[in-house]
Amino acid sequence: MKLKARTFEFFAGRPVAILNTHTAHKLNIHVDERITIMKGKKKIISVIDTTSQLVKEKEIVLSNEIVKELNLREGSNVEVDIAKEPDSTRLIKKKINCGTLSLDELKQIMSDIVKNALTETEIAYFISGIYKCGMTNKETEELIKAMVSVGKRIKFKGKVVDKHSIGGVAGNRTTPLVVSICTASGLIFPKTSSRAITSAAATADVVEAIADVEFNTTKLKKIVHKTGACLAWGGSLGLSPADDKIIQIEKILHIDPEPQLLASIISKKISVGSKYVIIDIPYGPSAKVTKQRAKKLKKDFEFLSKKFNLKLKCVLTDGSHPIGNSVGPNLEMNDIIKILKRDPDRPIDLEEKSVFLAGQILELSGKAKKGQGKNLALKILDSGKAFKKFEQIIKAQNGKIPNKFEFGKFKYTFNASKKQKIKSIDNKKINMTAILSGTPMDKQAGLYLHVHKNNLIKKGHPILTIYSNSRTRLQEAKEYFKKAKPIK
Amino acid sequence: MKLKARTFEFFAGRPVAILNTHTAHKLNIHVDERITIMKGKKKIISVIDTTSQLVKEKEIVLSNEIVKELNLREGSNVEVDIAKEPDSTRLIKKKINCGTLSLDELKQIMSDIVKNALTETEIAYFISGIYKCGMTNKETEELIKAMVSVGKRIKFKGKVVDKHSIGGVAGNRTTPLVVSICTASGLIFPKTSSRAITSAAATADVVEAIADVEFNTTKLKKIVHKTGACLAWGGSLGLSPADDKIIQIEKILHIDPEPQLLASIISKKISVGSKYVIIDIPYGPSAKVTKQRAKKLKKDFEFLSKKFNLKLKCVLTDGSHPIGNSVGPNLEMNDIIKILKRDPDRPIDLEEKSVFLAGQILELSGKAKKGQGKNLALKILDSGKAFKKFEQIIKAQNGKIPNKFEFGKFKYTFNASKKQKIKSIDNKKINMTAILSGTPMDKQAGLYLHVHKNNLIKKGHPILTIYSNSRTRLQEAKEYFKKAKPIK
Repeated sequence: MKLKARTFEFFAGRPVAILNTHTAHKLNIHVDERITIMKGKKKIISVIDTTSQLVKEKEIVLSNEIVKELNLREGSNVEVDIAKEPDSTRLIKKKINCGTLSLDELKQIMSDIVKNALTETEIAYFISGIYKCGMTNKETEELIKAMVSVGKRIKFKGKVVDKHSIGGVAGNRTTPLVVSICTASGLIFPKTSSRAITSAAATADVVEAIADVEFNTTKLKKIVHKTGACLAWGGSLGLSPADDKIIQIEKILHIDPEPQLLASIISKKISVGSKYVIIDIPYGPSAKVTKQRAKKLKKDFEFLSKKFNLKLKCVLTDGSHPIGNSVGPNLEMNDIIKILKRDPDRPIDLEEKSVFLAGQILELSGKAKKGQGKNLALKILDSGKAFKKFEQIIKAQNGKIPNKFEFGKFKYTFNASKKQKIKSIDNKKINMTAILSGTPMDKQAGLYLHVHKNNLIKKGHPILTIYSNSRTRLQEAKEYFKKAKPIK
Repeated sequence: MKLKARTFEFFAGRPVAILNTHTAHKLNIHVDERITIMKGKKKIISVIDTTSQLVKEKEIVLSNEIVKELNLREGSNVEVDIAKEPDSTRLIKKKINCGTLSLDELKQIMSDIVKNALTETEIAYFISGIYKCGMTNKETEELIKAMVSVGKRIKFKGKVVDKHSIGGVAGNRTTPLVVSICTASGLIFPKTSSRAITSAAATADVVEAIADVEFNTTKLKKIVHKTGACLAWGGSLGLSPADDKIIQIEKILHIDPEPQLLASIISKKISVGSKYVIIDIPYGPSAKVTKQRAKKLKKDFEFLSKKFNLKLKCVLTDGSHPIGNSVGPNLEMNDIIKILKRDPDRPIDLEEKSVFLAGQILELSGKAKKGQGKNLALKILDSGKAFKKFEQIIKAQNGKIPNKFEFGKFKYTFNASKKQKIKSIDNKKINMTAILSGTPMDKQAGLYLHVHKNNLIKKGHPILTIYSNSRTRLQEAKEYFKKAKPIK
């Protein structure tokens, strides 16, 4: 059936179409069923709502997700038809009953996810199946292939390197430093990062404090071509669209089954053509994983990467406490600039970790001899070349490094009530304190740690300062900090 | 924030509100987040869509589900606010990690399901958790209590009895017969049944061939008060609204974890105040369960029912082949009337099973001595009292028993190609043949079995007739039948 598209700047978070009740009747379709919408050769699947008054009979209201995907204008003609139930529901049932899926079956599921033929509920069942039953090594390998097959791929000339941290450590903003050091050595580093959804800030949020991070693949290629690197948000690139959708649904319960974690990371590295990859796996009490799980992950990462001709190395690092002094976009960027500018007040632990990771990449890619990576990395940092490279990347991303950073206009500092030794600092609780202060939406919010693990401090010594642009949020963060006691 | 409700007869299958982009901005709420909508003391939670044009700033478009729940009129004022993330997502995560939930925790989840505070995706995770980890006996008992606590309860005077079949057998329409026989003996039988969602026809669809089946609780009470029974659709009564929602989401993958199955059935029996209940568990190759699982279910049903002071008995029956001659609303109702009218051409197997089940209820409730139930049931059937009772119930439900039933205007009969013995008839394939013919939407569609298991038939003897009002559907059903070979 031919219908006239009405756009109305209608946002629903997913493809949704609103039909006139009579039109739905003519199509013999009911609320909660799905239609295909075609424009030329482009096609998308959508759920429907119906109304007898908001939309005329010959029209269809399309949510922005559809308008964008089909490149529609207000008033465009589209072809609408009933969508068949996707075959992949049967395959998802197979997985939830702990069956093993073949490459073709996984491709079918990934393709149906990308076409929006599967609802979020169906994808949740798929994730539950992986969570419950796991996947064989072979199956995880096929999942990676399937994810790559439905996404875009970018190719770059030169030695393309990458890094990834599985996360869970507060602060720990090594990426901008590692990228600047390695790229200054002549490597190609097309780094894509995530935004915080449940954490206080992710690399994309921190870089966004001073530059753009959302690009399409054409623009991204230009930046990398010009500077040898980028510090972009991965979400807008469509490199692994099935994975993006799966992650969105995993976030609902904060579950992250291992085969999916492996596939998610490796598929994205393949999509940007990386050849040398370092994976940082921080472990420890308040980190994301235990030492045991970290070892298992390392084994699985290294096994799988061989299947894809990736030179990949996992490093297990101490993730039992925050790294760097800051949590929050502006605060963390301030730490990074201090390190790049060789400021005496810079956070040494963050520098050491970044130099270590950069050194690993320099060795893996053959830029440095075994055992010499760290020295080379430090040399590049000391020479000012890393800072210059960072400035170049930020400029290419329409940004500028400010002389001074602004932090939240309300602040509060906790001081030591007596002489004491800092025994532990809990990542999760430090993160939560920062989230309550308003980060990452409020770029100037967050916290500054005046102490590190094992420091011996006098009475009255500052422990932690919280910043916020909202008095209420500052109060909430303060109260949480007092109650949760992240620092012991 | 106070907004003016616009209704527009907008159907979305779930509570959905459309806000003007500016209004959403003022509320500091984004697409995919949830709001509470209040009218007086009534409150519902809803997801939001936004648009800059379809809705004015001071207005809110509400889907019919909200309009109904809050009893709104076009133009009513409602109070709108941000909804907090429900605490039960944490509890669902506990279940998916195989934790045991307490009564309070289960009540919280059931209550959030009913208030629409949980999305379908979150409920799918909850179901997956039960599917993956099971539940302890104690936990299942608490689940039943939690389900009952969020639903309505009806009370009737007299000996209230009930039956339930876990399904999976084609035909097998015993309910109208069992209800008529038992009620004619003086028992109270407020029977609520389901509609077919994935099967060819369910009791509510078959009764709907000649009477109404959708009532509110007030009307239902009147019918039972007048006739001693009803044959109603359970879905519109709100007896176990959390369970209704869970079932809807289970259907997506056709999964049915046992604790949920037990809780679903028992909670509904408690809600209508049943005291004596027979559960029919058909087992066998093409049935829903194997003999082993049937035995396990029997044990669990009987264990749990004691906790709720229910006199419940499970009977394991042969579910390896269809029962009765017909599948499809009009065709099945025709079989039932034949039995009630004592027509010589009636399906004896369906009569025998119904008399057996009715006999069990008569014994359980003390209407008959042990071993005498079947005889009494047959006597009531032969006396014409069961038919009279059935007529009374149908009349109370605004129906009438026709002299003759109409079947689909297109039909096709398969005949035996040689002399042969019928070795087996597959329930699932017979059901699928009927579904393809158009049932349950096309009340006149379905099929008639001319043979039963173990029949010895001559060449040319009719085997099966398919009926449909659509030539295309008849063709599809024919082709499927030829390929799937349900009868061997």
